Order: sequence, then C-alpha cells, then structure tokens
Amino acid sequence: MERTNVPNATINRIPLYLRSLQEIKDRNRQIISSHELAELVGVQPAQLRKDLSYLGEFGTRGVGYEVEHLEFQLARRLGLTREWSIAVIGAGRIGSALLYYKGFKERNLAIRAILDIDEKKIGKKVGSLIIQDMRDLERVVREENIDVGIITTPAASAQGVADQLLKAGVKAILNFAPASINVPEGVVLRHVDLAVELQILTFFLRRHSLMEEKMDEEEVY
Amino acid sequence: MERTNVPNATINRIPLYLRSLQEIKDRNRQIISSHELAELVGVQPAQLRKDLSYLGEFGTRGVGYEVEHLEFQLARRLGLTREWSIAVIGAGRIGSALLYYKGFKERNLAIRAILDIDEKKIGKKVGSLIIQDMRDLERVVREENIDVGIITTPAASAQGVADQLLKAGVKAILNFAPASINVPEGVVLRHVDLAVELQILTFFLRRHSLMEEKMDEEEVY
Repeated sequence: MERTNVPNATINRIPLYLRSLQEIKDRNRQIISSHELAELVGVQPAQLRKDLSYLGEFGTRGVGYEVEHLEFQLARRLGLTREWSIAVIGAGRIGSALLYYKGFKERNLAIRAILDIDEKKIGKKVGSLIIQDMRDLERVVREENIDVGIITTPAASAQGVADQLLKAGVKAILNFAPASINVPEGVVLRHVDLAVELQILTFFLRRHSLMEEKMDEEEVY
Repeated sequence: MERTNVPNATINRIPLYLRSLQEIKDRNRQIISSHELAELVGVQPAQLRKDLSYLGEFGTRGVGYEVEHLEFQLARRLGLTREWSIAVIGAGRIGSALLYYKGFKERNLAIRAILDIDEKKIGKKVGSLIIQDMRDLERVVREENIDVGIITTPAASAQGVADQLLKAGVKAILNFAPASINVPEGVVLRHVDLAVELQILTFFLRRHSLMEEKMDEEEVY
C-alpha cells in the first residue's frame, strides 16, 4: 500500500538510498542490513527504517533487505521504471554539460531536445542533438512528448521561459537559473542553485573555524 | 548571540532567503514583511520567522525586516562576508561550466584553480585559469590558500581525489561525481547529484499522474 503523505525530507533521501543500492548491486551483494545501508548513505539506521516504512514493508527483521527488490521498489516510487522525456532550455555551458551527464540516461531520464533563442546557436549540434529554435517549443514538446523542462538560461529570462514551458504543456520544471520563478499550483518545480550548495558548505566551514578560534582562546587563558 | 544548534533544514533555507533578499535589494526596497519574504521563497511565514529566530533577532513586529541589515546578517552567518578559495578537480564539461558560473563570484566564492590528470588538458586555458597537473595539488592548495575542493571527476576517481584533497589540507568538499565518498569527522562534505534533483521531480510527477488516473476512474464509475 502506497502512502501519499510522505514527508519531503524522506522524498529527498530516497534517491540517495537508491544510489547506494545500485552501488551495492554492482558488487553482487544480495542482502544488506539497515545498519550497513544507513552507514553508506550517511543517516541513522532508525531514520532509514522510518523513511522506508512510508513506502511499504521491505526488510525482514534480523535478516535485512533484498537489494534488488528494494532497488526496484524505490525506483518505482521515484517514477524511474518508466522513461521521462526532458527538454533543456538554454544551450549555454550548463545546458550543454547536462547533455553529456551520464547520470541521467541510466536512470531513465532522457534528454530529447535542447532549445535556445540565439540565432548563432540554433542548428548547431550538441552531443547527439541539434539546437532548436525556442519559437518551435510547442511543436517540440508535442512531438517529443516532453514531460520535464530544464531551464539553464540567464536569470532574467527564467520566468518567461517557465511560462512558455507551461503553455506548451510541460508539467514539471527543474530551474538552474539563479532566479526564483513562480508557477501555478499543480506544477512540479525544483530549483538547483549551485551557489546554494557552496554556501551551505561555507556555513559549516565558518562554524568550524569559529570553534577552532574559540579553542585557541581557551588554550591561551 | 549566535546559536550553534541550527537545524540542517534551516541551514538549507538560509541561502534561499539570502537570494530573495538580494533580488529585493536590487529593486531598492528597504523594508519587507515576513509574509512577503516567505512568499518569495515559497515557505510559510511561521517557518521563516522560526528559521530566522535561530540566527538572532532581526524584524520589528508590525513593521518587518530591514532588507540590507538582514541580508548582511545572513551572508555573515553563511560565511560570505569573507572570501573562500576554491579548487575544481576535473576539467571536464561540468568542471569547466562551473568556472563560468556567475553565481559564485558575486557571493565571494572564488575559483582559484582547476586541475586534471589528463596530459592533453594540462596547460590549456579555461576561462582565466590554466589547467594544472593534479600531481601539483599540494603546492596549488598551499599557494592559493584553497579552502574548498569541488570534485567533478568520473565516479571511480572521486574517493581517491577526496583523499588527496584532505591530505593537501582542504577542509571542505563539494562532490559532483555520481558516487558516495567517505571523509573523516570534521571534514565538511556536500554532494550534488544532478540526477537526484530530477528524481525528486519525477517522484512528484508520478504521484500527480497516479492522482489523475484515479480521478479519471472515479469519473467513469
């Protein structure tokens, strides 16, 4: 029985469990304990068990989890047992890098189109795709059955591009542009800000160095 | 008074508050209410007030927050009022794209070096940097005072690179490689997996489409 009230924090961790399970499967392991899987992911075993309890009943007490079964179930819950079609908007450096990113294809995430407004880029090839004219977005979305739009344009264009994607029928947006965008209810939106990750890192770095300074002071007095 | 027991979920949201404050400041706004700031970020006002309460006392009841003061305080807590020196390991597409990413520099995150093991890449220029030999890592870290290492190598090299970074004295790692890495306690580690973000998106997309199917069935019967 699937529960629909899965907490966001749990949803955020499922892909991490899935990645560790895939690594374990590659090593031909068939059973893993909750302690070992939790340690691989970097969470407490109780947290892992609670997260998985939202998704169904998997493990056997005292034995552990069947790696392949759990992997399939998590992939299914993440919607990865079907393929999703993706269009990248913006053929700049980030957009082009995504086309070559190996992590997508092996998870059934297929980039089917890349579009730009720049006449100098349209018609050129990136990877196996030809950069298409943003004015053809509606046709491209229809022909390629695009589910997800990835925005990698400059900040100032992001909201306009999001509006165009929704008008063309796309239901989910991953935004790499460093700008907040607004979408109506029912549209799935995630924001990836590479600087945000670095700032979380510097938060902890600063705290570490404050603690070290404090320890130095304590040594002096 | 700074509290040190700030929840991780709060830490993850501070960069989002900061980004919205910067957008507001660019529009020459001086005061903002907690409701308006919360809406811009996409959280509940009560959540925003609680998050900020961990960092100090900022707003005035019935008036709101002074934009510039709050922005400075959040930037300070994130360690952004000083500059951090960054080395990128791996001069592939993601590594090179990061060098051109505008969001870093304006937040005092300075990429000072890029290194690779590939003889064909070493000595070539990317942006304003020359790709250096990974064998010179210790010298580069010392000369450029590197605080943070960003790993953009293939998965199989990630752990080895992390070990080299720590040996060279780096205290924080941002890992873009699609592999889990282990570091000793005291080292700050964050993992950016672009496919993870897409998988969280497809989780919600799948749930939406299950809900629509259910509604269709209900209409039929």
